[in-house]
Amino acid sequence: MTSPLPPLVTPPSRILMGPGPSDVDPRVLAALCAPTVGHLDPYFLKIMDELQGMLRQVFRTQNRLTLAVSGTGSAGMETCVANLIEPGDKMVVGVNGVFGGRMADVAARCGAEVIKIERPFGEVFDPAEIEAAMKTHRPKVVGLVNAETSTGAYQPMPEIAKIVHAQGGLIVMDCVTSLAGMPVEIDGWDIDAAYSGTQKCLSCPPGLAPVTFGDRAVAALDARKTKVQSWYLDLQMVKEYWGGSRAYHHTAPINMNYALHAALRCVLEEGLEQRWARHAKLHQVLRAGLEALGLSYVVAEPYRLPMLNSVRIPDGIDDAKVRSLLLQEFGLEIGGGLGPMKGKVWRIGLMGAACTPKNVVTCVSALEYALRKNGNNVTPGAGPAAVTAALLA
Amino acid sequence: MTSPLPPLVTPPSRILMGPGPSDVDPRVLAALCAPTVGHLDPYFLKIMDELQGMLRQVFRTQNRLTLAVSGTGSAGMETCVANLIEPGDKMVVGVNGVFGGRMADVAARCGAEVIKIERPFGEVFDPAEIEAAMKTHRPKVVGLVNAETSTGAYQPMPEIAKIVHAQGGLIVMDCVTSLAGMPVEIDGWDIDAAYSGTQKCLSCPPGLAPVTFGDRAVAALDARKTKVQSWYLDLQMVKEYWGGSRAYHHTAPINMNYALHAALRCVLEEGLEQRWARHAKLHQVLRAGLEALGLSYVVAEPYRLPMLNSVRIPDGIDDAKVRSLLLQEFGLEIGGGLGPMKGKVWRIGLMGAACTPKNVVTCVSALEYALRKNGNNVTPGAGPAAVTAALLA
Repeated sequence: MTSPLPPLVTPPSRILMGPGPSDVDPRVLAALCAPTVGHLDPYFLKIMDELQGMLRQVFRTQNRLTLAVSGTGSAGMETCVANLIEPGDKMVVGVNGVFGGRMADVAARCGAEVIKIERPFGEVFDPAEIEAAMKTHRPKVVGLVNAETSTGAYQPMPEIAKIVHAQGGLIVMDCVTSLAGMPVEIDGWDIDAAYSGTQKCLSCPPGLAPVTFGDRAVAALDARKTKVQSWYLDLQMVKEYWGGSRAYHHTAPINMNYALHAALRCVLEEGLEQRWARHAKLHQVLRAGLEALGLSYVVAEPYRLPMLNSVRIPDGIDDAKVRSLLLQEFGLEIGGGLGPMKGKVWRIGLMGAACTPKNVVTCVSALEYALRKNGNNVTPGAGPAAVTAALLA
Repeated sequence: MTSPLPPLVTPPSRILMGPGPSDVDPRVLAALCAPTVGHLDPYFLKIMDELQGMLRQVFRTQNRLTLAVSGTGSAGMETCVANLIEPGDKMVVGVNGVFGGRMADVAARCGAEVIKIERPFGEVFDPAEIEAAMKTHRPKVVGLVNAETSTGAYQPMPEIAKIVHAQGGLIVMDCVTSLAGMPVEIDGWDIDAAYSGTQKCLSCPPGLAPVTFGDRAVAALDARKTKVQSWYLDLQMVKEYWGGSRAYHHTAPINMNYALHAALRCVLEEGLEQRWARHAKLHQVLRAGLEALGLSYVVAEPYRLPMLNSVRIPDGIDDAKVRSLLLQEFGLEIGGGLGPMKGKVWRIGLMGAACTPKNVVTCVSALEYALRKNGNNVTPGAGPAAVTAALLA
């Protein structure tokens, strides 16, 4: 049974400009490896309370039921859907990318009668479409993706939330990619339940999923006639550990919660509005550089996410070859396309600690190099010059 | 919306001798905070391959489907049950503690027709009881807890596995607490599916759940007529990411996987048999000390877990007061009782990096102090003397 031991973990240094994970602040890594304590240690209970307080600030909510689920962003999605849906409930899901499609799949597995409304990848939904679906189907829950990580499209929410509530529905929002990188206003937009992930604009390693539930959603949990189908994600038990009797449910991922604590502290120390502004500004800088390289955006301008830039791969350029070159020669990760966009787009992230002038400069120069090396006829220096001009603007 | 920032994460230094998490080796913490890379980075794919290889060695199996689920031990339990059970399937679950009870709850939520066979907390099942249940109910799956963390009882498995297979059933085993601290032989015992956690004898922070599925279990997955009810835990998709097409499923908890890699390396560097022997030896040393303090074991001798020592709290001693004193004055965490054992027993862990002569000495001396401070009439020095004698034996 004995084999030679693999070498120690010694990862290469990367610039993470894909769709997540993003670069992690050294302060977050330092917290991650702080000494492990027990999950009922008074010190850890204090960390949990502080985490909840900071999550509420970042989500812009007063929701008491705000906590970090012990799994990645998709576990946050499943937590929201599985807790709100009982078998036979109707759920309308907006599918305009991979994550809307995933939500529909999760809802069907939870026993929902799923009504998909669809838009091509890269587009977003109009409030009138949601209103029509509400009137036709009278669903219990509507699920929408605020920031489609697979396409880079931004779905405005406030008007839709009003429509859903006017028809007696609940609205669940995926803000995995938007949270802490652009305005997300849980209370201001009147969102009933939302989930995110730690590895995007929070710039924490992947492993936890912040979720928040408002009063209407909590009332729906309390009114359930059946048990939540997932024991692990059942918020009626999880919330007792986070804020109620402290009854043991599962052993919390102690060190990951330390890291999230540190990451939220970094966000609030910078200031949420300042952080949004940094992402907005550097998105324009990156955009100038990418367009000067001849790359065009997939999403129409008013609906572009600042932190996820989907651009079309020029004709004749091999997706995998370019990304591999960027990784090998620059340590730079950018993302490929998902689903129907596979091989056709690059997804360039500008998330949290990775959203810096330094990274934008590197990315645009490295792309120029990779495009030229692969025979693309890009004007030498145009990309970097456009970046400098946009930084000076 | 602005509140003062909470202080930085600065956890106290603890000796973790509860039911988990256990002490973490500094090499594991160092790996945990290594630079985050992408979940499709060639470096991370190599780490995953190495992790699977080391997990197979620790589980003592050749099972191809062996990986770390992105959640804690209870997510591992739910993975095993949700993937094997389809609505209406029969599952026999042995309930002789909290975790057997949890498995029955999980199975019912998965739509199983659950048949509980019960034993008082602290006892274990006889093969004849399983045989009787098999013949009466003909279940698809039998679930048993190899090491009941709530009671400290050890359930022998090989004979039961033969019985289950003779009747055409599958056997699922909880080895959360036993793995890497005492013999666990997935192939030798012919176990179909098993799950563990990282925070017990693997001495890694909590956050991942190693699971392994053998040929019969994989055939059952392939024969499913319905989708697994949990999207997040659906092994047909998860396994493609770990060992198949590398298709993106969810973003793996990169740094936690680094930590598990380092923890498995520590286990294999020590040697699995040597590690089992260390736990067995120090269990006897701790036992000598605890008995000299007048503390008696809950579980009958042949079924005691070396790494989880459940002892009765003496009459007149306040559980919470003693545990709080140990934590405050010695930084020592031991566990309280769960379920019907709450307030009646202490659960003293000897897991992985926490299983050292130094910790046993500290624990027994600290308990002597705490008992005497709370008016218990223990003979001064008897506990530590017994520890020394047992170490010399």
